[in-house]
Amino acid sequence: MLFLFLFSAPLCAQIDRVEPPYWWADMETSEVQILFYGENIAAYDVSTEDEVLITGVTKTENPNYLFVTIETDGLQAGTFQFNFSKKGKKSFTRTYELKKREAGSAQRQGYDSSDAMYLLMPDRFANGNPDNDSVEGLTDTYDREASGGRHGGDLQGITDHLDYLEDLGVTTIWSTPLLEDNDPGYSYHTYAQSDVYKIDPRYGTNADYRNLADELHKREMKLVMDYVTNHWGAEHWMIKDLPTYDWINQFPGYAQSNYRMETQYDMHAAERDQHYCVDGWFVKTMPDLNQKNPLVLQYLIQNAIWWIEYANLDGFRVDTYSYNDKEGISKWTKAIMDEYPNFNIVGEVWLHDQAQIAYWQKDSKIGAIQNYNTHLPSVMDFTLHDGLTSMFSEGAGWDTGMMKAYNNFVNDFLYPDINNLLVFLENHDTGRFNEIYDQNLDNYKLGLALIATTRGIPQLYYGSEIGMRGDKGKGDGDIRRDFPGGWKDDAQNAFEAASRTQQQEAFFSFTKKLMNWRKTAKAVHQGSLTQFIPENDVYVYFRILGDEKIMVVLNNSSSDQTLDLGRFREVLPDAGNGFEILSGRSIKLEETLEVSAKTPLIIQLN
Amino acid sequence: MLFLFLFSAPLCAQIDRVEPPYWWADMETSEVQILFYGENIAAYDVSTEDEVLITGVTKTENPNYLFVTIETDGLQAGTFQFNFSKKGKKSFTRTYELKKREAGSAQRQGYDSSDAMYLLMPDRFANGNPDNDSVEGLTDTYDREASGGRHGGDLQGITDHLDYLEDLGVTTIWSTPLLEDNDPGYSYHTYAQSDVYKIDPRYGTNADYRNLADELHKREMKLVMDYVTNHWGAEHWMIKDLPTYDWINQFPGYAQSNYRMETQYDMHAAERDQHYCVDGWFVKTMPDLNQKNPLVLQYLIQNAIWWIEYANLDGFRVDTYSYNDKEGISKWTKAIMDEYPNFNIVGEVWLHDQAQIAYWQKDSKIGAIQNYNTHLPSVMDFTLHDGLTSMFSEGAGWDTGMMKAYNNFVNDFLYPDINNLLVFLENHDTGRFNEIYDQNLDNYKLGLALIATTRGIPQLYYGSEIGMRGDKGKGDGDIRRDFPGGWKDDAQNAFEAASRTQQQEAFFSFTKKLMNWRKTAKAVHQGSLTQFIPENDVYVYFRILGDEKIMVVLNNSSSDQTLDLGRFREVLPDAGNGFEILSGRSIKLEETLEVSAKTPLIIQLN
Repeated sequence: MLFLFLFSAPLCAQIDRVEPPYWWADMETSEVQILFYGENIAAYDVSTEDEVLITGVTKTENPNYLFVTIETDGLQAGTFQFNFSKKGKKSFTRTYELKKREAGSAQRQGYDSSDAMYLLMPDRFANGNPDNDSVEGLTDTYDREASGGRHGGDLQGITDHLDYLEDLGVTTIWSTPLLEDNDPGYSYHTYAQSDVYKIDPRYGTNADYRNLADELHKREMKLVMDYVTNHWGAEHWMIKDLPTYDWINQFPGYAQSNYRMETQYDMHAAERDQHYCVDGWFVKTMPDLNQKNPLVLQYLIQNAIWWIEYANLDGFRVDTYSYNDKEGISKWTKAIMDEYPNFNIVGEVWLHDQAQIAYWQKDSKIGAIQNYNTHLPSVMDFTLHDGLTSMFSEGAGWDTGMMKAYNNFVNDFLYPDINNLLVFLENHDTGRFNEIYDQNLDNYKLGLALIATTRGIPQLYYGSEIGMRGDKGKGDGDIRRDFPGGWKDDAQNAFEAASRTQQQEAFFSFTKKLMNWRKTAKAVHQGSLTQFIPENDVYVYFRILGDEKIMVVLNNSSSDQTLDLGRFREVLPDAGNGFEILSGRSIKLEETLEVSAKTPLIIQLN
Repeated sequence: MLFLFLFSAPLCAQIDRVEPPYWWADMETSEVQILFYGENIAAYDVSTEDEVLITGVTKTENPNYLFVTIETDGLQAGTFQFNFSKKGKKSFTRTYELKKREAGSAQRQGYDSSDAMYLLMPDRFANGNPDNDSVEGLTDTYDREASGGRHGGDLQGITDHLDYLEDLGVTTIWSTPLLEDNDPGYSYHTYAQSDVYKIDPRYGTNADYRNLADELHKREMKLVMDYVTNHWGAEHWMIKDLPTYDWINQFPGYAQSNYRMETQYDMHAAERDQHYCVDGWFVKTMPDLNQKNPLVLQYLIQNAIWWIEYANLDGFRVDTYSYNDKEGISKWTKAIMDEYPNFNIVGEVWLHDQAQIAYWQKDSKIGAIQNYNTHLPSVMDFTLHDGLTSMFSEGAGWDTGMMKAYNNFVNDFLYPDINNLLVFLENHDTGRFNEIYDQNLDNYKLGLALIATTRGIPQLYYGSEIGMRGDKGKGDGDIRRDFPGGWKDDAQNAFEAASRTQQQEAFFSFTKKLMNWRKTAKAVHQGSLTQFIPENDVYVYFRILGDEKIMVVLNNSSSDQTLDLGRFREVLPDAGNGFEILSGRSIKLEETLEVSAKTPLIIQLN
């Protein structure tokens, strides 16, 4: 093989890139479209020896691109050759490999409601390898002083702290994007990608990423990739030499999105407004991909599948999901789910109305009103998040305080799959919970208890487990501060108990206790939910699965409360014992239950 | 006939009430259940001579009730006799009449989006007959000084001012309830009814009500009855001698509703919370009817149909629709719509989320998620109302100002029938628009222009056409003030132009011009709606029906605006003329359009 590769290299002068760089035999979708890129490559005819069937060759207005589709059905793993010829004369060849899939790849089980997800930004979590803080050829270099600069965090930093995360009780890591983003001045967020087959060298290598997945899997933990279908960075090599004019949405060139996602389903929407929503660019540095173009769509599908197979991923989070072309993103999602029926994908659908969010979940009855089906298994519970930003401080009223939690769940019937909703106190685009509530530990306990015990998949955001602050009003940098201890010269290492402040430890120990308990609480993962109208700002609900029954009491009021348990008789036995998991107390459940001010109780009933 | 009636009277000593008092031949639903009420009436057997078939006799635990169902199929209009006997011996008879229906009764056309509805409270509109201000036997007497007292308004007062209403340009009257309400101290609202087959004598007679309908129909106007299925007053004669214990919802006796209508569809709702929502009483003086009881349900269906036939009604508004037993109210609604397929019924579904409101409209896809169908043709656009209470004063922002209007309509796809939504600035239970906006005429013009030109049926509230104020915070009495001039001794008569203040006339003339124009604007009644994202707080939309095209521009900003008409080219011709109906100006529509600060334009395009 090595010999073959070296030998063929000089003949490949015409080919600068081949994508996907290799593929797999025995995929569910047996066709794969291979992009050959090189100067005037389209001037060549392409053929294969062997039994490999070329089912399509697509040339575009740019002669540097050639899209060749092959049928892999019946092919064994191994290599074969593409022959490039001009005027009937063979010019050069290119070896292509079909790898053997790992056993069980197709049936891989994505993250689900038994998991707890930990969202981190790799540049801001831990700097495991200071040698790659700046890398030649990538313009944006290390500058830890700048809030929007690269701080040096990387894959090694994540891998180094898996024991910490396992100990914390989370089971799944969602890292914001890691693929190369060569934006000249603002790249640490990595949503403006310049090469989607390569981990950004400032984070490490493709192998480092696969190693992270392997290390997680050893711990029975999962890895979620943050995938971007909507746009690439202006520095993407294909953007700089567009395969087709309509590879991206052009007005010509840049026009800004109006960000009015509502136009995606508004039956009255002006076409112009829809056009600017979907086809307008998110920001000027991120040209908007045109998923209506079948070449673009196929490229994005294959790239996504490539990463699943290559890195052994357990799921995706998809950025700006609802800004994509509706039909395109539906096809993209379906293609991946067809390949991996038990996989999971959560889309960022940042809306403030449950019907609007539910529209985007697979098999939605709301989407069906417009004959639309995304095939997207999971969406984010942004309306719960909306409520969480005020419910713990505003006081009780007809629709305030814990009523905001209750009222969020009354619309659950709109969702086709409530267990596949991501529930979160915050993320990398919002103000931090502990900023909004001024590091009030009581509010953090109430909030985390809620997202850890209601239906869905709880998602934590790095650093909140030690009470980290961050004010969205001060800019994104402030909500994406460095995790203390992630850098060797940090004054403090909050990854280690001995180094944590008392306050940090209070946040951490609560989080750890709750999330570790949750791992085994099957009624929380899959049980039914029965909720009672909050009274006196005390919200009570039950999670029930077979014999397993959990009573959650969230006393958000500033006074101790005595609950009359008679109200809950339809789910609570007349008398019984419970075990309150946060305090470790046994509780007799008879006529009444005492609950202290601003306190959650999570009671396992016997 | 008269002879027969007089002759049988002494024999009817046992019968105090018969309901319905008569019925009609040739109804679609041919069975009718007749309630006989009298001391120990259940001790009698009942039979008919003639060909009348009794299909059922129901006795309850209260011997004073007898429910007799007859089959009217094949019967001609006319009278027949019920024979009451004891131990085989005929004791007395009761004559019953089947009337002939008016031609076209079954196919009567309810109000629709070509109509404009005028909501009034009869006690507060005009006192046409001072002789009935207090009536013997009805406890609550005339007290115009009390904000919650009876002020003497009546049916004659409404009938006297139909020319005024016709001139104003409204086409349909919705009067709040008129049936007898003998609540001892708080009856003017008339939602606590004590006899649902009788107009409250303080308003007039049944014949006066029918006369009002006749007078309206002469003017091609319509009459809508405010029907209450959820509860009766504690003074209702049946409540005071309950036919069955479960005629009303008992705990036993009174328990208050929790008013959490969300429990009606919350898949997680505790049964107890659902029970208290639906079965709890709205207020203590209004026992909650149990529509699960088939006798109750049938009574309510027949009573409603009786009024349609008797008074020749054009529609219902149903009070507290979503507080009723879900299955019961669905059956009630379907029974009426089966009888009158072109009728219209709007339910008060006071919720703040379009999916939740849409749930209650006939053939809702949202309701279908839970296999529920109300059969209710029309619901109220309370979310638009929510927006209307702040959009004209809060200033423009991402989701404020005219965005609140735009954002309301983006969810229209959730409704099965957007043309059958009631749109309103206010009603008798909310703060008055002209109070909220401090009698600002500009805001009134923008608001009225919006509800008069968007999809649905506009509903006005009496007095707003002269700028009347009313603060909900000061109690219901304040939002239900007397219309000036409705009482003979009023200092001013705002029904007459000459007597109006300059300010009142400014409100009136605008309303009159707009509503009269609307009568013939078919594109507003039935046309498609195309809306554009508001910019600079200017909201632009089009109503289009065939060749008829109307452009609406609502400039809510405090500065004059120049619109680039290029934005609207998908619906606007490159050049053309328009006629602005509010100012009576012709307008050239070329590159730009000027619109003054805080001004609506309604442009008919040629």
